[in-house]
Amino acid sequence: MSKRYWEDFKPGAVEIYDSRLVTREEIVAFAAEFDPQPMHLDEAAASTTLLGGLGASGWHMGCLLMRMIADSFILDSSSMGAPGIEELRWLKPLRPDTRVHLRATVLDTRASKSRPEMGLTRFRYEMIDEAGEVVVAMVVPTMFGRREKGVS
Amino acid sequence: MSKRYWEDFKPGAVEIYDSRLVTREEIVAFAAEFDPQPMHLDEAAASTTLLGGLGASGWHMGCLLMRMIADSFILDSSSMGAPGIEELRWLKPLRPDTRVHLRATVLDTRASKSRPEMGLTRFRYEMIDEAGEVVVAMVVPTMFGRREKGVS
Repeated sequence: MSKRYWEDFKPGAVEIYDSRLVTREEIVAFAAEFDPQPMHLDEAAASTTLLGGLGASGWHMGCLLMRMIADSFILDSSSMGAPGIEELRWLKPLRPDTRVHLRATVLDTRASKSRPEMGLTRFRYEMIDEAGEVVVAMVVPTMFGRREKGVS
Repeated sequence: MSKRYWEDFKPGAVEIYDSRLVTREEIVAFAAEFDPQPMHLDEAAASTTLLGGLGASGWHMGCLLMRMIADSFILDSSSMGAPGIEELRWLKPLRPDTRVHLRATVLDTRASKSRPEMGLTRFRYEMIDEAGEVVVAMVVPTMFGRREKGVS
């Protein structure tokens, strides 16, 4: 796929990207560094929590999503970054040895009023497991350079 | 501080917690794993971006905040986890070798209607730098076990 600019994202467009396996080892290593709650570190402790068994930290889920987004298209785009996350929901535990993929939906897109070389695109990003279910979903507004400068 | 339950979080309460240093080495290591965009990896490449110089991945900022939240009080509380993040904003670049601390504000709190053993507390979490400025802020609703079961 060629490098993408703001003009290339059309509202309603849905794209599915390559999958990756999430291992127990990486779930525990991430939790030990950033989110050392028992439910992300230890099966026995996790079994008595709302997760009902070992599951990845929600922050790990977000970071895995970020990596999939970067590899899928952001690194080969005119992305200028994002001001934040509008909403993020953890919908289902992410268990060890689950294969997940990324679904990216363009929600809407608008030119910047103040910067003619820039546009904004809002995405819904979802991590989907092997059962086809969404484990984490978030809405992220992203700034992109325009292929052609607009009138502002 | 003793173990905290849902009843112990009062709306409007603000707490400041210990600081930590964020190094260039950890910024680059995190980015290489989860968010390999040039602005988080390389000074020269970063200087031409909106960040205006090397800065931590926004996901790294969130994960550092999570670790500070865990160490500050969540690990010694009746926390049952969070369903998501209501809003997250990256307000200022996080540069290498910045010392940051956590400010936690209790926004509001309510008993669970369906689970008498549980309550919900919404926090605003902010990472503050040495200049006293907020680098990242987020609102997170968290479920806590109650010290005494409520009537539902």
